Amino acid sequence: VNASPIGFPLGFTATIGRIGIKSDRDDVLIVGCDHPATVSGLYTRSTFAGPSVVVSRENTATGRGRAAVVIAQNANVATGERGMENAREVVALTAGLVGCEPTEVAIASTGVIGRPYPMEKVRTWFRGASWPGGGVDAVAAATAMMTTDTHPKTSEARVGGARVVGLSKGVGMIEPDMATLITLVFTDAEISADRLDRMWRRVIDVTFNAVSIDTDTSTSDTALVMASGRAGPVDEGALEGALHEVALDLTRQTAADGEGATKLLVVTVDEARDRTQARRVAKSIVNSPLVKTAVYGADPNWGRVAMAIGKCTEYTDIDQGRVVIRFGDREVYPHLLPDEELEELSGYLRGDEILIHASLRTGRDEFTVYGCDLTEEYVHINADYTT
Amino acid sequence: VNASPIGFPLGFTATIGRIGIKSDRDDVLIVGCDHPATVSGLYTRSTFAGPSVVVSRENTATGRGRAAVVIAQNANVATGERGMENAREVVALTAGLVGCEPTEVAIASTGVIGRPYPMEKVRTWFRGASWPGGGVDAVAAATAMMTTDTHPKTSEARVGGARVVGLSKGVGMIEPDMATLITLVFTDAEISADRLDRMWRRVIDVTFNAVSIDTDTSTSDTALVMASGRAGPVDEGALEGALHEVALDLTRQTAADGEGATKLLVVTVDEARDRTQARRVAKSIVNSPLVKTAVYGADPNWGRVAMAIGKCTEYTDIDQGRVVIRFGDREVYPHLLPDEELEELSGYLRGDEILIHASLRTGRDEFTVYGCDLTEEYVHINADYTT
Repeated sequence: VNASPIGFPLGFTATIGRIGIKSDRDDVLIVGCDHPATVSGLYTRSTFAGPSVVVSRENTATGRGRAAVVIAQNANVATGERGMENAREVVALTAGLVGCEPTEVAIASTGVIGRPYPMEKVRTWFRGASWPGGGVDAVAAATAMMTTDTHPKTSEARVGGARVVGLSKGVGMIEPDMATLITLVFTDAEISADRLDRMWRRVIDVTFNAVSIDTDTSTSDTALVMASGRAGPVDEGALEGALHEVALDLTRQTAADGEGATKLLVVTVDEARDRTQARRVAKSIVNSPLVKTAVYGADPNWGRVAMAIGKCTEYTDIDQGRVVIRFGDREVYPHLLPDEELEELSGYLRGDEILIHASLRTGRDEFTVYGCDLTEEYVHINADYTT
Repeated sequence: VNASPIGFPLGFTATIGRIGIKSDRDDVLIVGCDHPATVSGLYTRSTFAGPSVVVSRENTATGRGRAAVVIAQNANVATGERGMENAREVVALTAGLVGCEPTEVAIASTGVIGRPYPMEKVRTWFRGASWPGGGVDAVAAATAMMTTDTHPKTSEARVGGARVVGLSKGVGMIEPDMATLITLVFTDAEISADRLDRMWRRVIDVTFNAVSIDTDTSTSDTALVMASGRAGPVDEGALEGALHEVALDLTRQTAADGEGATKLLVVTVDEARDRTQARRVAKSIVNSPLVKTAVYGADPNWGRVAMAIGKCTEYTDIDQGRVVIRFGDREVYPHLLPDEELEELSGYLRGDEILIHASLRTGRDEFTVYGCDLTEEYVHINADYTT
């Protein structure tokens, strides 16, 4: 959790505000660049993707952009033609404010599904907004995007003379498929749109596409990176490393702040036939409600990990006689621990971050995924969300 | 819930007892036939399938059998070579008791994973057991199989001059893949092993393979049907209907008694391209923790149903502009209800059985699945199971 102010990289400024969509907290964020930045956007593959995703996918396909607008508390999803018109109007209002073309604006929204934006309130807010906002740092910006998040998620890294600053939100309906709920990463490094896009796909694949809080894929997932180029060119490997560092940090913050979560759960599957197998088995473990509740209860019930491996029934090459399961670095299967040692292990499981490590012994590939425990509070939060 | 005694069909008798595996309640059940019955067994496809599943799969492959033994409170899974030896010993002890060959005995176990059976206690119990037990009805038999079930699950049907009696257990780690935790169905109808097997597969496919409580596939799933033939031949269509009736009744009881559940959730997807698509989308809805918690909270948050349809991203033929979503018979999408009517809907959602109905408009096939809501109690039960 970052609390001290984090300025945006060179070229970017931000404004935040309060449209009043659902509560009396900030619910709109605009980040703009003073000239066209290179851009890459990755979006949900949901067939119920909202108008924000449709419009942003179109607008970022050019690899260039000037601004991103985020509206929180309302996803503007499953709202029909009217939802699409409203999304285009918000984009046009943002372009008017920032001083660019509507096609240079990306839009992202999350919150309740199936309710139109309160457009009168939206128009009123834009009439009173000024640009550049000035003085809004990344922490305030991330705060304006929050829905059920308990704290803003930001991360930064340096690469050569450039900086990378990332913002993320979202702690429920999270098993991203191509991107997360909303992640915005800004850098002043100089990089071509093509290279930025390839880099971004590789980074998201092992960070936000490796997180799962509740197996539910959002209709609004959006991961956007914008590079202003103001700090000039940097080593590209180092830039990818910095993007990875920021995205992984945000991923871990997202998983640890999963709705109702008390612990970060990291699952590494290695010695797998290929990365697909490692990912599938790791996801099966991190998503198992029985594994998640055992982690919550600090119960060293490794049998549930065995179950979660076993239920990937398409992998008949997985031999239960060769699999090794560990909590942290402690082997629990196939060498069965005596009861006293299981008690000790329960001490480990009371920590803030739990590693479950399974070696499949079918090959040499590995994959790591990020999740959290499942608690009564998750149920409580979600049993009463719209009402 | 059946409380009055239900006798077994002609030819079958049962005995129950208390090995003392975990608590001081009944934890062993043996049902035997006085001559070789025709048998079909379906089992978990888990790669961590336990010795019980391995041994039963071998023994029921012949299509004939004399007895089934169930041990509750201990799954005997992930227990290595010793677990396999123990399973074979229990089968031999059962054969000795009933007076048949070990190859004529099926075995099923559920409970904690990774602990060997307490074999001394098992042998002691068998030494004191008598056969036939006499007087044990299906309700007492189903009670002896229970782990976290809150009540025994039995069902019966008549077909011509024959009867069908079913027993089932299991309310957690439930998304069966080929069978459920443990279902035993007995009939005195006469039927060949081949026809019984084909019939059983069709029945299980639309009943126990259509239930999901928590997406977790057990290592121990076993669905066994035994036909003594004592009541002579009956109409085969009617017999399949009776098996379906009993299996569906047990399926609904299983879903409604899901760990911590307060409601039965039935999801029907129709107008689908094919049955596979209908099943996949229905499972996505019934398994979504956000849908399940909304049902628990009686929150008419249909947007989560839209999300769950949308996350089946492999189906690009699903057009969000054509899908229709209903709670019960009330359309909620695409025709958006005003807030007053959403309130009314919340009354429906406070009932004991909730139907979610989605029409995909991609074809003419349909599938129905069975599940339950997700409550704080599910977390509570599973955060502290072994300890």
